[in-house]
Amino acid sequence: MRIARYSVEETIRYGVVELAGDGGANPETVSDLTGDPFSGPVKLSGVRHGLADVRLLAPVLPRSKVIGIAKNSVPGQDVAPAPTTIPAVFLKPNTSVIGPGEAIQLPALSTDPALEAELAIVIGRICRSVTPERVPEVIFGYTVTNDVTARDLMPAGVPWGVAKSWDTFTPLGPWIVTHLSVEEASSLAVTGLVDGECATRGTTRGLIHGIAELVVFVSSIMTLLPGDVILTGAPAGSAPIRAGQTVTIEVEEVGQLTNPVIGEAA
Amino acid sequence: MRIARYSVEETIRYGVVELAGDGGANPETVSDLTGDPFSGPVKLSGVRHGLADVRLLAPVLPRSKVIGIAKNSVPGQDVAPAPTTIPAVFLKPNTSVIGPGEAIQLPALSTDPALEAELAIVIGRICRSVTPERVPEVIFGYTVTNDVTARDLMPAGVPWGVAKSWDTFTPLGPWIVTHLSVEEASSLAVTGLVDGECATRGTTRGLIHGIAELVVFVSSIMTLLPGDVILTGAPAGSAPIRAGQTVTIEVEEVGQLTNPVIGEAA
Repeated sequence: MRIARYSVEETIRYGVVELAGDGGANPETVSDLTGDPFSGPVKLSGVRHGLADVRLLAPVLPRSKVIGIAKNSVPGQDVAPAPTTIPAVFLKPNTSVIGPGEAIQLPALSTDPALEAELAIVIGRICRSVTPERVPEVIFGYTVTNDVTARDLMPAGVPWGVAKSWDTFTPLGPWIVTHLSVEEASSLAVTGLVDGECATRGTTRGLIHGIAELVVFVSSIMTLLPGDVILTGAPAGSAPIRAGQTVTIEVEEVGQLTNPVIGEAA
Repeated sequence: MRIARYSVEETIRYGVVELAGDGGANPETVSDLTGDPFSGPVKLSGVRHGLADVRLLAPVLPRSKVIGIAKNSVPGQDVAPAPTTIPAVFLKPNTSVIGPGEAIQLPALSTDPALEAELAIVIGRICRSVTPERVPEVIFGYTVTNDVTARDLMPAGVPWGVAKSWDTFTPLGPWIVTHLSVEEASSLAVTGLVDGECATRGTTRGLIHGIAELVVFVSSIMTLLPGDVILTGAPAGSAPIRAGQTVTIEVEEVGQLTNPVIGEAA
């Protein structure tokens, strides 16, 4: 199932997306849910819209946090080596989240902003110290992210808040896919495109710390809330972006997330 | 005015604290407010409690983020030198916040946990790109914090999420003082005590990037929401803490924040 969040007829709703390739009776539609699936049980309301008639938003607004993972691949290695250290963790504020089609606004302060194409894990339940066996229970699903980074604003010895926290630096979308197993999500192509040209290409097989390990480790540090998001790290590193370009992040079996890039207003 | 958040008679309320030194008619009391001052206008409800009869909680639960500032003093210098770089920013999750009296739980993974005694700024309004003139308008008040840090879990070149983000690593309290000007808050003694003995002592005059500069800079990066908290940085560095100790952070004119320290359950 694909769960989207969207605005339609001046309200914001969650709904279930059906695509042409699904073989269902109502392709390219979205069916409204009765509420917010991160707050309690929901069901189909019976109202359906054409997918082209709604405006997709970030599929989740984390009420708490976005957790980023750094240094989670080895450049040029398609299959990750065994981990030798604990995961490198940083936080991005929920105020940095935007949805599909919204503009990434580059700050004038940065001379070297970059895309990072990544698979994102969306947490569905409050949890702490999750065991490996329970990981599938706490994952709501997966979405696509661009972990936008001002690479020049993270000098040695300084924490990464200025590099990672700007408003618009965490595009999420286009929807959350809930039907992939942890194993399936651990073998997906992840591509970053700039103006339609491939800029980075890797797969989630290249992640040193895999999906299950990340949920176990991060939840050993902090309580995770429904709607929290873990960005799993870029399997193929970063690539420069500039104002005027259009960036698309594509994760196989999940979707495509496209955002224009603009400069800071003078 | 001092605004506290507390549990009393099985509900959680905000209220106004009156202390003995204030010279008012009802010392050592707390007067209930009609709601949450971060959500809209409130007034006194007319109900008053003895301060000893309520349980103080973290005075604010950030709905978005806690922003930390690193490297914001020079050891041994009581008056800060002029800034030569931009502030060093990190984020702590709202799930790391605890209140007065709650236990700081040290993770088994860390061999060198430490206290950092700091003044915290509590934001009162949604804001972005605040100008220096508008800083007083967006500050709700000030509280005391202990920016607990696992100093051994921040190796060179790695972001600081693992060192800073553990549940219980952001004690806040005992209340928010709303009557200090930015200038007054920029000249307060800040002390960290372990089992009643002074471990660190400095003043907010020692902060390289001062209160107004921090609000201007952080809000140039990210939208701040009511209840967001900026930890201004430790003017006198950190000091080790161990399970079994009791830690008190004291900020002149603001208050004392005391928390026991425990180890991780085996």
